[in-house]
Amino acid sequence: MAVSPTAMRREIEAIPSVVARFLDEGRAEVGAAAAAIRAAAPTFVAIVARGTSDHAAIHLRYLIETELGIPTGLAAPSVTTVYRAEIRWSGGLVMAVSQSGRSPDLLAVIEAARAAGATTVAIANDASSPLAAAAEHVIDCRAGEEVAVAATKSYVAQLAAGAALVAALAPDGPIAAALTAMPAVLRSVRATSIGVVDDDSEIVAEFAASERSIVISRGYDYPTALETALKLKETGRLFAEGYSSADFSHGPVVLSGPGVPVLAIRPDGPMGDAVDEGINAARAAGGSPWVVSGAEAGQGIDEGHLIRLPLPRDLPGGLAPLATIIPGQLLAEAVARRRGYDPDAPPGLRKVTLTR
Amino acid sequence: MAVSPTAMRREIEAIPSVVARFLDEGRAEVGAAAAAIRAAAPTFVAIVARGTSDHAAIHLRYLIETELGIPTGLAAPSVTTVYRAEIRWSGGLVMAVSQSGRSPDLLAVIEAARAAGATTVAIANDASSPLAAAAEHVIDCRAGEEVAVAATKSYVAQLAAGAALVAALAPDGPIAAALTAMPAVLRSVRATSIGVVDDDSEIVAEFAASERSIVISRGYDYPTALETALKLKETGRLFAEGYSSADFSHGPVVLSGPGVPVLAIRPDGPMGDAVDEGINAARAAGGSPWVVSGAEAGQGIDEGHLIRLPLPRDLPGGLAPLATIIPGQLLAEAVARRRGYDPDAPPGLRKVTLTR
Repeated sequence: MAVSPTAMRREIEAIPSVVARFLDEGRAEVGAAAAAIRAAAPTFVAIVARGTSDHAAIHLRYLIETELGIPTGLAAPSVTTVYRAEIRWSGGLVMAVSQSGRSPDLLAVIEAARAAGATTVAIANDASSPLAAAAEHVIDCRAGEEVAVAATKSYVAQLAAGAALVAALAPDGPIAAALTAMPAVLRSVRATSIGVVDDDSEIVAEFAASERSIVISRGYDYPTALETALKLKETGRLFAEGYSSADFSHGPVVLSGPGVPVLAIRPDGPMGDAVDEGINAARAAGGSPWVVSGAEAGQGIDEGHLIRLPLPRDLPGGLAPLATIIPGQLLAEAVARRRGYDPDAPPGLRKVTLTR
Repeated sequence: MAVSPTAMRREIEAIPSVVARFLDEGRAEVGAAAAAIRAAAPTFVAIVARGTSDHAAIHLRYLIETELGIPTGLAAPSVTTVYRAEIRWSGGLVMAVSQSGRSPDLLAVIEAARAAGATTVAIANDASSPLAAAAEHVIDCRAGEEVAVAATKSYVAQLAAGAALVAALAPDGPIAAALTAMPAVLRSVRATSIGVVDDDSEIVAEFAASERSIVISRGYDYPTALETALKLKETGRLFAEGYSSADFSHGPVVLSGPGVPVLAIRPDGPMGDAVDEGINAARAAGGSPWVVSGAEAGQGIDEGHLIRLPLPRDLPGGLAPLATIIPGQLLAEAVARRRGYDPDAPPGLRKVTLTR
């Protein structure tokens, strides 16, 4: 008997078409925001976000620093909302990334930054939200309504929106050249991932049977590790902690070993060697790490634990996270069902973060 | 029969005298760095650090933003070391926080920032280290040699160094007014903490018996939560994850409940109300959270689970983290021994982070 897929599963499967739609329809908004940023020539960037959107913000900070060379950090909302400090935002670009556009603390930061003279941009999935109204420029993610509480397609739409903005600001750069091909890349990554992370797979069985797990990566895919861990926590309800592989190797590796599955997101290129440090540390601790990789893969990885995604060899590392999150999202969805939970409605979670 | 205390325990007990020495002997270095920063009038600050020092960096970012109003973020070393991007650091203040002063990636960021024209400051516990040589200005933490692999006294010395720098830049502000009294505050917090977190206490028994735990706070004490969790992981070898109480309430709360101890660091003042959100969420999930508090404490907290520290009512929230970490450090040390581990030498850890 066929069982109808969960909303979370359907929303993961929608990712290629969501990104295609954004790239098609979002062009004018992205261009307007880019023109304003170019005119303002900000000397620094601050991005404010929470939860899953925070991971999209981390991806964007790497992209802005590597492709545009502007120092970028993540803003701490409580400085504005609780400590009531006045920050001298003038001369900067202050961005908010939010699925709902309804978090009061993000709104407060954007309002304060705009009042202080900063250029402000909101990346949101609701162009009629208060956050979209507060920011000078809005980029609508156009991901459509998300029924599952766990954000999946809206996360990848946020990554695409950030990448599109960077591409518009560096039109001769590698991100601009590769971005239009992403929907096709995502379709083939989706097919491969669905084939590997299926309900009967060893990886689903191993994570579902565990109460503790670790997800590592570094650089552009560091947020992929954090977001995969968050999805495993929220929907699968197992302890899953995301680490930079550098930090992992020098501390939390003591927690790994048999019974504690480790998943590594291993990018192609020089960052792959850096992530191998963490993979090797996990192996030395007695574990057999799972590895999501592109075309390359490090020495000595158990082929049975390798999820090799069909990423083009020349794909810029900054675009890989749109694809590398897909196996992790599928894993969390399948692990939740295997553990008897409804992935669409984790207990105690709300779609909108109402932090003040 | 008396058992001689571990090095970690002796180093935690040394915290009040370490801070007293720093405040006494570090004045000239702090003054020189502050004068250079004042002259440069940076429009933004970036701080680079790893592991425990990263938590001191987070504390410093809050202090700089609230007391000085300068936008501050944490730098991602891999942008420089792996992606080889050139960041336009000119006009900024770039700081490194490091116990050893020997991490190649932090060194690379400071060298790049100085070459690009930024003001550079290193906070390190070794004034003869390569990092100290690379930065224009050095603040030596003077914490003395740390024998235990887990950093304790050097962490609080880093917090004190950051606070002293902010005090020198805002000599009429609340941090400057309260800083000199901190050694006395720390002595009394040490006495209270040792009395409560002893080997026969319920809190040590509960965390030692658990494989999973959660530590929450927000604002200035957010790094206290992260650092307490890291100590529990490194020395106690239990899964302990630190969260902003805001993020915790909107996701990872699903992991809490009976059998998963939650420790909340609850600051006095308006941030205490914000942390109560997380405490209440943990209680609603069926747990009985432990709370480290100052003079105030939220409604409905089980008195038996309350660790009330003797913090002065008028202590600025930005200085509380020098004290609120002490119960967590003692907890990690005692939990490690109870679980049969040597707190001084966690397997697989090295004192110096050699990430490139």
